[in-house]
Amino acid sequence: MPLASTPNEPSSPPVGRGFVRLRLDLAYDGTNFAGWAIQANGLRTVQDEVQKAIGLVWRLGQPGSVYVAGRTDAGVHARGQVVHFDIPEDSYIDFFRQQYSLNGLLPADIRINRVSYAPAGFDARFSALARRYTYAIADGVADPITRNHVVSNWRRLDVDAMNEASEKLLGLHDFTTFCRMTDYGTSIRTLTEFSWKRTSYGVMATLEADAFCHSMVRSLVGALVPVGDHRRDTDFPVRMRDACARTGEFTVMPAHGLILESVVYPPDDQLQARQDLTRAKRNISEID
Amino acid sequence: MPLASTPNEPSSPPVGRGFVRLRLDLAYDGTNFAGWAIQANGLRTVQDEVQKAIGLVWRLGQPGSVYVAGRTDAGVHARGQVVHFDIPEDSYIDFFRQQYSLNGLLPADIRINRVSYAPAGFDARFSALARRYTYAIADGVADPITRNHVVSNWRRLDVDAMNEASEKLLGLHDFTTFCRMTDYGTSIRTLTEFSWKRTSYGVMATLEADAFCHSMVRSLVGALVPVGDHRRDTDFPVRMRDACARTGEFTVMPAHGLILESVVYPPDDQLQARQDLTRAKRNISEID
Repeated sequence: MPLASTPNEPSSPPVGRGFVRLRLDLAYDGTNFAGWAIQANGLRTVQDEVQKAIGLVWRLGQPGSVYVAGRTDAGVHARGQVVHFDIPEDSYIDFFRQQYSLNGLLPADIRINRVSYAPAGFDARFSALARRYTYAIADGVADPITRNHVVSNWRRLDVDAMNEASEKLLGLHDFTTFCRMTDYGTSIRTLTEFSWKRTSYGVMATLEADAFCHSMVRSLVGALVPVGDHRRDTDFPVRMRDACARTGEFTVMPAHGLILESVVYPPDDQLQARQDLTRAKRNISEID
Repeated sequence: MPLASTPNEPSSPPVGRGFVRLRLDLAYDGTNFAGWAIQANGLRTVQDEVQKAIGLVWRLGQPGSVYVAGRTDAGVHARGQVVHFDIPEDSYIDFFRQQYSLNGLLPADIRINRVSYAPAGFDARFSALARRYTYAIADGVADPITRNHVVSNWRRLDVDAMNEASEKLLGLHDFTTFCRMTDYGTSIRTLTEFSWKRTSYGVMATLEADAFCHSMVRSLVGALVPVGDHRRDTDFPVRMRDACARTGEFTVMPAHGLILESVVYPPDDQLQARQDLTRAKRNISEID
C-alpha cells in the first residue's frame, strides 16, 4: 500500500556531476517490517535495510540514499519494487557479484533480483507510468501456509459480480472516497485495471493505476468484497466513489493480502519526459 | 515428510465401548514446528498443540490421543492432514462450534478445516489408500514472500525431462535408495503418481503412493532436480532406485518445499477391510 506522501518526504535530486545512477529491482515479505519508509522511531523498515546494505557494498562510508517507486505500508509485500540511488562514477562495478553481496548482507525477507545502470532520465518514482498490485483472498478453507500473504474471508465470493462492479470504477476519477484523508494534494487518479480471477486458493484482484494514494488499493478491495458476497449490488462501489467522501459503509482490507507486483516505465527515450511531466503535473508530495 | 515409524509408536486401538470416533481435517504451516510427532524434549509439535486443544474442547480433563494419517518432519507443511481420536459417546457435539473453538485455541499456524464423525471402520492411518504430496521449487528469481513453502533453485529446470524421468519410477518397487535407513521394516512401496508442472513461481511436483517411508518424497525430488538442470540423463533416477542403496549422488531436498496435500480413503463400506489389510500386510511400525 503506498503511504500517503508527506510534504517533507524528499524527492530525488538529478544525478550529480561525478555520480552514476543505479536501479535495483527487489522483492520483500512485508510481514515483519513497519513498511518501506525509514522511521525516526527505529522500527524495522525495508528502506533502512536496503540503504545500509548499499552503503556497505559500494563502500560509501554511510548508508546510501534510495528513492522508491511505491512506498508500501506495514505488512504490505512487494515482488517488483524498484528503487534508484546514485554512487560515485569511479565506484567498482560488478553487478552480478554486487547482487550476490547485497543478498548476503540483507535478511531473508528482502531479495534483490537485479542490479543495473539506470538509463538517462530514470527516476524510480517520477518516471513510472503505472503501479500494479495484486490482492489475494481465500474464500474457502483457511490455509495457514499462505496466511502471511492471503487474507481469509469467511463468505464465498462471486467473481463475476466483482468484475462487473470493478469495471465501472475504471478511468480518470476523483478517488477521495478510497484515500486516507490528507490536507494536501489531490485524489484524482487514473485506474486502468481492476479485475478479479479465481485461483487455486480463492480469488485475486489485479489493480493498475498511474499512482495510488494512501490506502487506496485496500479500500477499493474493501468496497468490492460486499459485492462479491451479495450484500451489495454491483453499483455500490461506483456510488461510493461518486460520493467523494470517506465512509464507514465498507472496510479497508488488511495489509497482508497486498503485493506490489510491478512498476511500469516508458521506453528509455521517454523516461526524462515522463519524469518532467509527472513532477510538473502534480505536487511532488503526492505521486506514489 | 513422513517420519520413519519407530517400533514404539503406538497405533490406534479399536473404538472402545462407550466411545465414539471423530475425524479432523487440518492444515498447518510446518515452519515453526519440530514436526508432527510429540517429542519428549518439549519442542513445539503439531500433535501436542492439537491434543491439548481437543482435551479442552471436549472437556476430557487431559489432552486427547490423536492418530495421524501422515506424520510430517520438522518444517514440512500440510493442507489435507487427517487425524482421528475417540471421545466418550455422551460428549456434547456441535461440530460447527467445536471447529470454531479449536481454531480459537490453536495458534494461527494450525487450522482445523472440518470436524466430523468418523465412519465405522475408519482409522486415519491404516484405512488410507494413499497420501498425496506436492513439492514446490522456484527456479527463477527468489521470492521472499513464499520462502517458507517454496524452495529456491538457482538453475532453470526442464519440466519435460523431469516428467520423462519421473514416470519411469512409477509402480511397485523397492525404494530403499530413497528411504532413510532403519533396521526394521520394508521400503517396498507403490508410487502411483510423480509428475511435474510449471507454475507462476517455478515448478511443482505432485507425488502419490500408498505410503512413503522417511525422507522418500524429498529424496525422490532430489534425484529429479539434476535431471531438470541437465546434469543427469532421464534414466538417472531409475538407475539409482534399482541400485537399492543409499547414495551421495543426489541430495535430499529441504523440508520446507513439501506439503501433504491430501489423504485418500476408500468408500465408507471398505474402510474396515482396508484397515485390516494394511495392518496384516505390513508391520505396523512402517505404514505412514
